[in-house]
Amino acid sequence: MKSNGIVYLVGAGPGDAGLLTLRGAELLSRAEVVVYDALVNSELLRLAPKSAEIIYGGKRAKQHAIPQNELNQLLIAKAREGKTVVRLKGGDPYVFGRGGEEAEQLADARVPFEVVPGVSSFVAVPNYAGVPLTHRDFCSKLTLITGHEDPAKEASTIDWVQVARTPGTKVIMMGTDRIGQIAQTLVAHGTPAQTPVAMVRWGTTGHQQSIEGTLATIAEVAAREKIGPPTVAVIGEVVKLRNKLNWFERRPLFQQRIVVTRARGQAASQLARKFQELGAEVLEVPTIKIEPPTRREDVVDALLALNSYDWLVFTSPNGVTTFFEYFFRQFHDMRGVALAGGPHAR
Amino acid sequence: MKSNGIVYLVGAGPGDAGLLTLRGAELLSRAEVVVYDALVNSELLRLAPKSAEIIYGGKRAKQHAIPQNELNQLLIAKAREGKTVVRLKGGDPYVFGRGGEEAEQLADARVPFEVVPGVSSFVAVPNYAGVPLTHRDFCSKLTLITGHEDPAKEASTIDWVQVARTPGTKVIMMGTDRIGQIAQTLVAHGTPAQTPVAMVRWGTTGHQQSIEGTLATIAEVAAREKIGPPTVAVIGEVVKLRNKLNWFERRPLFQQRIVVTRARGQAASQLARKFQELGAEVLEVPTIKIEPPTRREDVVDALLALNSYDWLVFTSPNGVTTFFEYFFRQFHDMRGVALAGGPHAR
Repeated sequence: MKSNGIVYLVGAGPGDAGLLTLRGAELLSRAEVVVYDALVNSELLRLAPKSAEIIYGGKRAKQHAIPQNELNQLLIAKAREGKTVVRLKGGDPYVFGRGGEEAEQLADARVPFEVVPGVSSFVAVPNYAGVPLTHRDFCSKLTLITGHEDPAKEASTIDWVQVARTPGTKVIMMGTDRIGQIAQTLVAHGTPAQTPVAMVRWGTTGHQQSIEGTLATIAEVAAREKIGPPTVAVIGEVVKLRNKLNWFERRPLFQQRIVVTRARGQAASQLARKFQELGAEVLEVPTIKIEPPTRREDVVDALLALNSYDWLVFTSPNGVTTFFEYFFRQFHDMRGVALAGGPHAR
Repeated sequence: MKSNGIVYLVGAGPGDAGLLTLRGAELLSRAEVVVYDALVNSELLRLAPKSAEIIYGGKRAKQHAIPQNELNQLLIAKAREGKTVVRLKGGDPYVFGRGGEEAEQLADARVPFEVVPGVSSFVAVPNYAGVPLTHRDFCSKLTLITGHEDPAKEASTIDWVQVARTPGTKVIMMGTDRIGQIAQTLVAHGTPAQTPVAMVRWGTTGHQQSIEGTLATIAEVAAREKIGPPTVAVIGEVVKLRNKLNWFERRPLFQQRIVVTRARGQAASQLARKFQELGAEVLEVPTIKIEPPTRREDVVDALLALNSYDWLVFTSPNGVTTFFEYFFRQFHDMRGVALAGGPHAR
């Protein structure tokens, strides 16, 4: 029975593949079409069935692979074909992600949809750089701003005077290139120049890079350290906790890139996860591949003559797995069992 | 080999169990101690091993099961015993969740810790009520405030004058009882009284309840509808999109409570998930339990005499599962197999 088409707008989280939600993983595992953004961890695409159509939807400051309107039309068209479509977006679909517009278009087209929240970068990225956004001693208020806009432009929809005077932590997303102007504007309107700032590039991933400064110095530090997008910047006293709470960047393998050449599978994934847990960025590049024996008959012959051997020696876990696969494949044949008189006939 | 103790501060998400992260689920599955808060979906506790020690850490406005300081000491003590401790907190640990304080205490005590972000209620709850927090047409700025504080109190750390004048969406968490005062204060300081407000109780769960009004009317509506905590309130033009984008509350079984009486297991979980997907709140209350046969020998005897039967009739899926469990348990005995001359000896 073919169900009707539906579009799931799914938040992929900030980068670390482990931060996808269970619901997101489940939907990916039965997607027929996946449309993903530039900032989505490509590891997640592996959760989709091999048969799924994978489409790059693009979007990274200034560079849009598919114009937003065409993308909306694509989602609608695929759903109308009866497809289960997962639209995978970085972070949360509704935090500066244009998810609202995509959902509106789907609603207008009467295409069923669900919006699956994701872990937003603006909380997770500071966390992975040792900064808790709120803290009883420092703030009970949080301000999030997209840094896409030029603070100098007159038509800015952000009232920077207000922002400057607002106490509490401020988080600027997508403001890499404008951090200098933003810091200047804030100071000009009354935020103390000594307010601590942390700026984090590629947060939550194995190649996370973070810098620290104040509103007065951050632009200079960013230039010196050649910090490009994507970044999340945190402004506020909570940045001072970084020394104490930086659990992620202090991991022993932080910023190490490790290539796992094992054949893809359970063992390789477990190994990769262990390295990731120690802080490494892991690339799975299988250089070997385990194939079944080309002549199945040889294995069956050996199995049938099992009782003629004194020893059975395995030289690798893969050998064990393959042996038992064949063994049970032969064995599950009920008729054979019955005729043999049952396994305990000895 | 016993590894050293560690504390994972894990964000459990806003209520919907599907919004836990993969990393959170993995850590729960190997926890030795779980300390959870009041607002955590208790379904998640089932992900922990049966052997895990489950401790209620409490915390729900005004009512703290374990004082914060004792709780911190508990986490430290368990970790020092060498335990893998999961501290499960509603939403994200670092968004008004005291996670910062807990992490600081752990750092001071030199206990290793990791902070696993969660989907924060302030994004997910409005989403499940049809409200996207940001929208290009309406705002590029977001303000989050904890409503714990009395806006009238002089020592308030929140500058309500600033908040009132700040454009963009505002989200108030934990402000249920004070929504009237908050709305009044905002209007007194210049926010238009007609600004739309949505207030959502038990958001993202099967018993989510949401109301709508304006800054002028919301307190009255909340009183009439008897809205108690926990709530998330959204203030701003984005609330107008609710009519269009309310995918969750329009599900066919929304606010229906369904009890699944099947024995716990794969089938019951799948059934529960299907009902949940249709919007129902599902309670799994198994009224039957599948037990193994009390006399194992009877089954073994029947198995050994398998070839004496013409027909093998199963009366339920549970019968099939149990039969094959016994069948393969007998069968995996290699020696028996070898002596029997292999399964294809016919």
